Amino acid sequence: MANRITPRSQDQNQWYLDVIREAQLADYGPVRGTMVIRPYGFAIWERIKESLDEKFKATGHSNAYFPMLIPMSFLEKEKEHVEGFSPELAVVTIGGGKELEEPLVVRPTSETIINHMFAKWIQSYRDLPLLINQWANVVRWELRTKPFLRTLEFLWQEGHTAHATPEEAEEETLRMLDVYATFAHEVAAVPVVQGVKTEREKFAGAVRSYTIEALLADGKALQSGTSHNLGQNFAKAFETQFLNEDNELEHPWQTSWGLSTRFVGAVIMTHGDDKGLRLPPRLAPIQLVVVPIWRNDDQRDLVLTAANEIAEELGAAAGGPGLRVHVDDRQQRPGFKFNEWEMRGVPLRLEVGPRDVASGSVVLARRDTGDKATIERADLAAEASRLLEEIQEGLLAQALAFREANTRPALDRDSFQAALDQGGFVRVHWDGSSEDEASIQAETGATVRCLPFQTDEESGVCFYTGRATQTIALFAKAY
Amino acid sequence: MANRITPRSQDQNQWYLDVIREAQLADYGPVRGTMVIRPYGFAIWERIKESLDEKFKATGHSNAYFPMLIPMSFLEKEKEHVEGFSPELAVVTIGGGKELEEPLVVRPTSETIINHMFAKWIQSYRDLPLLINQWANVVRWELRTKPFLRTLEFLWQEGHTAHATPEEAEEETLRMLDVYATFAHEVAAVPVVQGVKTEREKFAGAVRSYTIEALLADGKALQSGTSHNLGQNFAKAFETQFLNEDNELEHPWQTSWGLSTRFVGAVIMTHGDDKGLRLPPRLAPIQLVVVPIWRNDDQRDLVLTAANEIAEELGAAAGGPGLRVHVDDRQQRPGFKFNEWEMRGVPLRLEVGPRDVASGSVVLARRDTGDKATIERADLAAEASRLLEEIQEGLLAQALAFREANTRPALDRDSFQAALDQGGFVRVHWDGSSEDEASIQAETGATVRCLPFQTDEESGVCFYTGRATQTIALFAKAY
Repeated sequence: MANRITPRSQDQNQWYLDVIREAQLADYGPVRGTMVIRPYGFAIWERIKESLDEKFKATGHSNAYFPMLIPMSFLEKEKEHVEGFSPELAVVTIGGGKELEEPLVVRPTSETIINHMFAKWIQSYRDLPLLINQWANVVRWELRTKPFLRTLEFLWQEGHTAHATPEEAEEETLRMLDVYATFAHEVAAVPVVQGVKTEREKFAGAVRSYTIEALLADGKALQSGTSHNLGQNFAKAFETQFLNEDNELEHPWQTSWGLSTRFVGAVIMTHGDDKGLRLPPRLAPIQLVVVPIWRNDDQRDLVLTAANEIAEELGAAAGGPGLRVHVDDRQQRPGFKFNEWEMRGVPLRLEVGPRDVASGSVVLARRDTGDKATIERADLAAEASRLLEEIQEGLLAQALAFREANTRPALDRDSFQAALDQGGFVRVHWDGSSEDEASIQAETGATVRCLPFQTDEESGVCFYTGRATQTIALFAKAY
Repeated sequence: MANRITPRSQDQNQWYLDVIREAQLADYGPVRGTMVIRPYGFAIWERIKESLDEKFKATGHSNAYFPMLIPMSFLEKEKEHVEGFSPELAVVTIGGGKELEEPLVVRPTSETIINHMFAKWIQSYRDLPLLINQWANVVRWELRTKPFLRTLEFLWQEGHTAHATPEEAEEETLRMLDVYATFAHEVAAVPVVQGVKTEREKFAGAVRSYTIEALLADGKALQSGTSHNLGQNFAKAFETQFLNEDNELEHPWQTSWGLSTRFVGAVIMTHGDDKGLRLPPRLAPIQLVVVPIWRNDDQRDLVLTAANEIAEELGAAAGGPGLRVHVDDRQQRPGFKFNEWEMRGVPLRLEVGPRDVASGSVVLARRDTGDKATIERADLAAEASRLLEEIQEGLLAQALAFREANTRPALDRDSFQAALDQGGFVRVHWDGSSEDEASIQAETGATVRCLPFQTDEESGVCFYTGRATQTIALFAKAY
């Protein structure tokens, strides 16, 4: 079977769309810009959810659910917020066959409706901190869309918290950013830069926005998760107040933070190759696929029995290492199956034929390197676990090396443009204004992705204004 | 603290709303008929999801996600379907600031959009069966609403499957009904009657609808989950076809099945008492709450240490029985805590004070009966597990006894009305038409909840038409 995936080197965009189609991750919905998440793509999202949800709960958050339909007037209460979101709204004007008195917005995000409720629930410092998360769908009327990376409707989680002091709110904002970064590195093997957004790029309504920025293989940056310190902006707009320990009324300090199905796009773009998807083992819905090989019915019974035994051994049931294993027992040629599971990015393939059963061995093939080796059945559980760890580390190392190779310094406007033309991050000293950012974007298409957290002081000169500064900025073209 | 819950005997409806408020299960959203599911209520829904999702996956289904916005024209393709749903639709007419060319419906259910996709995905018998489930929000513009039981927006799962033969589709329909019934009995301790809907009560677009019907404590029935055999209705409307093994084109046979957040309402109504909620242990987000009792700081340290040790022992971490345990270490009086956890229905309360620490014992109190007993620490894990099992069984037994006591036969129209006036199910022989059902509903407010599955033949006479029949119907007033 011919590989129906366009080589990356030929056309990154077509490669991305081909992988999504051939790996059966998603399909186009009937409404422009909407997406159907197919079972295999959704299984990746389920793994992301599971991993994050556990971390959210471990840091004291509870899940809740708020209505999707928000009165239009709510959006208008916070001035920056309505300016940021009103061009992107989907509006329900008819309900039960009648024109509604007040149009209802399909949530683009839930700060407003959540603050409406927080104003009822928060009375005293005893009610704080209030630590809520919601898994939900949101709608933003985007004009240019691309599966996973930008769709009219997407799935996400949005955390919303309220605190008694500004320090606690800032601490929470950074804690959740760190949860995202840890997840991205350790589970998804997607290296991200943590930093703060500029005033121009921050969330509409926030005091300060933090971000994790990934660098995708096409050289564009992807904002992969954000954490916002909202200060008292929404609390003031919605008159949320609490009695503090000194019996004085104060507005609580709030945060919000979100990560969405666009992260699946980051995974595809970061790890894929010309054969299709490559999934990091900790995120993969299937970590090891067993392909039994037979020529006739007798052999079929023999190898299928062995295949199922192996799956059992490697799973959790029999006290095994708890791998996620799938036995592909379809009536198809092995070559067809090899190709399909390669396209779908399963980290390890195990082949077992009649001679392997006789000799008590199997063949293990790595998706990342293509290496194949014969393994004794007795060593299989340990070897599979070891290889999965190696693949996980290998994918992260590759992605880190790619980012390093594609992060270029620039000292002045000319070298900035030259660096940008090569794709990737351009790392500069920065002392410009929001107007300067706008000019740069108009001239080059690049934006400040973030001011990365710095551990050391780095004195230098802003590439754009020529002023001395210690602030570093990462510029890039972005999704 | 005074109990702020109205006694059930005084006002069932107010009792229900009081429990929801005091147990912090839900709150009213700003748009009429919408609901906020608060963390504790959502934790119950999470337990329902977890339990069902596991059963769906074990029966071969995969989760996926389909867009929420559906072109209005899709709804119109299946005649019965559009008639059934058009009065309840929420319609998006504006997107990104512009009037849309075609209005978009917020999904009331997803048969239409899913068939649009199935038509693309299904080509051959090899693509069947296609077994999909979706966890999602849906909107139906209901006029009379009540938290959990009927809300404008609700959360649910909707299964959608396609099969190569009508027999397989019918088998699937019944399999998933059984999954619901098993879950209701074994996890939620909510007894349900399985049966088939009459033509008048079936899902708009189905060939045949099956249901699980619960009898709530106020004497009203609740349709708690449904499973539909859709035949080829949607496949024909959306031109979904496959090549069968004989190389002929056929429309697949389909099913759909759903269970929603209204089930949380069934749990509250079935098990609650005048003190508030009572949760069956297998469904309870917290199975055992530890209330440490202290008078001064020294005692506080002592009992909190013991409380945390106990929680560790009873959880899964230390090889314990894996109970869901919460330590209530708030600076509040024990009486306040006892009252609160009673209202919130936690099955077991464990009290531990300084003298208990000294004597190596604790006090266990059952939420269902109020019984208290002193238990040696050494026996605690076994005793807590045993009591939870006993509570689970006890709640189911009580609910079954209630249903039995409130299921009354009727032989003619007078005894039917008399039985109905007492609330509960009225069990009759039935040979009436859809018009007869409409007349009965107009006269009495009751509907056929289902024709329950019968194991034995029961000859008799229809209470309404006087004709001989073996068919049994359960009538009731319903939510």
